[in-house]
Amino acid sequence: MKAEIIAVGTELLLGQIANTNAQFLSQKLAELGINVYFHTVVGDNYERLLFVIRQAAARSDLVIFTGGLGPTQDDMTKETVAAHLAVSLVTDHAAMEKIASFYAQRGITMSENNRKQALVLENSTVFPNDHGMAPGMAVTHDGTTYVLLPGPPSELYPMVDRYVIPYLTSLLPAKQVFHSRVLRFFGIGESALEERLLDLIERQSNPTIAPYAKEFEVTLRLTARAESVEKAEALISPVEAEIKHRVGEYVYGEGETSLHEVFVNRLLQQQVTVSCAESCTGGSLAAAITSVPGSSAVFRGGIVCYSNEVKQHLLHVSPSLLQTDGAVSESAARELAEQVRLICGTTVGISVTGVAGPAPLEGKPVGLVYIGIAVEGLPTLVKQLKLAGRRQAIIGRAAKFAMFYALQRLKER
Amino acid sequence: MKAEIIAVGTELLLGQIANTNAQFLSQKLAELGINVYFHTVVGDNYERLLFVIRQAAARSDLVIFTGGLGPTQDDMTKETVAAHLAVSLVTDHAAMEKIASFYAQRGITMSENNRKQALVLENSTVFPNDHGMAPGMAVTHDGTTYVLLPGPPSELYPMVDRYVIPYLTSLLPAKQVFHSRVLRFFGIGESALEERLLDLIERQSNPTIAPYAKEFEVTLRLTARAESVEKAEALISPVEAEIKHRVGEYVYGEGETSLHEVFVNRLLQQQVTVSCAESCTGGSLAAAITSVPGSSAVFRGGIVCYSNEVKQHLLHVSPSLLQTDGAVSESAARELAEQVRLICGTTVGISVTGVAGPAPLEGKPVGLVYIGIAVEGLPTLVKQLKLAGRRQAIIGRAAKFAMFYALQRLKER
Repeated sequence: MKAEIIAVGTELLLGQIANTNAQFLSQKLAELGINVYFHTVVGDNYERLLFVIRQAAARSDLVIFTGGLGPTQDDMTKETVAAHLAVSLVTDHAAMEKIASFYAQRGITMSENNRKQALVLENSTVFPNDHGMAPGMAVTHDGTTYVLLPGPPSELYPMVDRYVIPYLTSLLPAKQVFHSRVLRFFGIGESALEERLLDLIERQSNPTIAPYAKEFEVTLRLTARAESVEKAEALISPVEAEIKHRVGEYVYGEGETSLHEVFVNRLLQQQVTVSCAESCTGGSLAAAITSVPGSSAVFRGGIVCYSNEVKQHLLHVSPSLLQTDGAVSESAARELAEQVRLICGTTVGISVTGVAGPAPLEGKPVGLVYIGIAVEGLPTLVKQLKLAGRRQAIIGRAAKFAMFYALQRLKER
Repeated sequence: MKAEIIAVGTELLLGQIANTNAQFLSQKLAELGINVYFHTVVGDNYERLLFVIRQAAARSDLVIFTGGLGPTQDDMTKETVAAHLAVSLVTDHAAMEKIASFYAQRGITMSENNRKQALVLENSTVFPNDHGMAPGMAVTHDGTTYVLLPGPPSELYPMVDRYVIPYLTSLLPAKQVFHSRVLRFFGIGESALEERLLDLIERQSNPTIAPYAKEFEVTLRLTARAESVEKAEALISPVEAEIKHRVGEYVYGEGETSLHEVFVNRLLQQQVTVSCAESCTGGSLAAAITSVPGSSAVFRGGIVCYSNEVKQHLLHVSPSLLQTDGAVSESAARELAEQVRLICGTTVGISVTGVAGPAPLEGKPVGLVYIGIAVEGLPTLVKQLKLAGRRQAIIGRAAKFAMFYALQRLKER
């Protein structure tokens, strides 16, 4: 089944809002195994809307519209679809009653243009709007199913979950499910990952392998279709095993999660506590850890030792070390990690010291970062990084590397 | 000039991300007075992309593409545009050098597929990518201008601001300019602001008044069109003055800046230093301050006192205060702000203590936050907030309120 989504509304073309409805609908359709081939945004203009409808009718089996069902002159989705299909609009009595009583209840006279919200395409399946006035509707003509839905997300989302998903499911052949597994990678770039898995990616059919890069991480979504979830998982497992065999050292987690969530959950699981001494990351690492609900059970606190005075006075780093090796050094990273661990009384102490940029520091280049991982009962580990990118990229990456290395180190405890 | 925007990427059709690039570009084009008539999203598929390109060429004067400029097999925007135009792709040497040195710097071998990122349409205007590897490009053929831009917002936005806007401006008839002034508001919501300015917003024509809400702030963009920048500013000034007369207390800055930039710049201007004691914001406040280049001149450091032990041991808050009033209290906020100021030796000390959620703390409700502002020579100020929203919204807002109150307090110094 080939689907496309058409969002109607000039405010989208003016950039006043983003088309999050298309994202929402696409996720839902993907879960049903329905392929979406196009998103279109068109304004509140009859000719252009009619053009877009005709094009969609010619190329798609399922066309989902959002927006343009309201009471104003600019709202013309059903009128234009009706014109394309050469069908009438009729009043849906349940919708009309609801609209009328909404106004009656508030002691306001209903404006005439509100009546048009109760109109639906003749012989359509009507979807009640439990959070607004305009009902949704669906009708099939000449092999294409047209689904017209409201624009406001607060009305759209419940209508889709409650009425539209069951309707669409009834259109599908009953025989297959789609099931995904997501692998999350850190420390390897998208192109390098693709290179290592190139033959798998080129040969893919079932499951499909979709790489996606964002915020210094890469994820791979493996999606299989089969008669049942168990059979889909059986198709995914060997592909996942081969991927892990080749690049498993970069896998930090699975499913819809994040590096900081995985990190905090591991700390909770192992019942260990952590504290951080941050120089160049300036609080980002602590902020990432504390963004996870429940982190207070494992995160005691941290010191943002942005200046050398604070490194000396609060973390007792010796002035001579700062003089000879500098704050951006392996020895400073070691000292900071060990000190914060002792001062805060935690199992693990993490330090991050480096040059975030844009200017070099202590004669050292932008991107040079040292991460110290002090763990009770183990020798302190210090890792050196040479990160590329702008200040915020270096800061973000350094904080993630710190959690990644700490995760690896915790395996040895 | 009729424009349309085409976003290329299967991840958009799978609903993995929303097409925020189209929103951003549409705002920018609106500011230039260029009308956008369609947004399209198409997947990483040669036939469908070629179809969309051909359709756009037939109906639009300006076609802007985002995405599909990367190194993988799925990236095919320039190849497909080149095929449509029957032109070649050539290596842009500046881009190739940058890509090669990126890998050399990190001591990693560049994978072959990265070379294609340096290819551009022959005879195109090349837009450097200051935040990534793939350059943008623009070329005009047969009355249609094709602009190809990267997908990641962190690369797209600066490229558009720095290079694409001037390029597009050069395409426009020179007879009128568009000039904008942006007012930045904090501490008032979008609908409340709109209500206070309703008559101005309804009556707007030249300048236009466009409100944008994001990340707990509201901005108003006043855009005037006139024969010259001076005449446009003359149209804007009275409207700006009326707005400031009504809601000036919520204006924290102007233009393309942020609360943390304004804050750090004020500290630099007044030559004062700051330190932070953060409980519920967990490092976010320090991270915001240190995200500003040059902040090391004014930010000494901070203590993320996430646990009561750290509040006691590092910030010397008395156990009895924590027992009787609790960590989430006016007295704790005062103590934390004053102590961190003394310990770090700064002019200003800021504290944030509260309940970020999702669970209540010390029997106090989610969203209750106290902010302490200690300034040398002034009595310590403590503000109480009742914030709504989820954990990350409360944390983000609390950090911004802390800077906003500190900014206000610094005026009294």
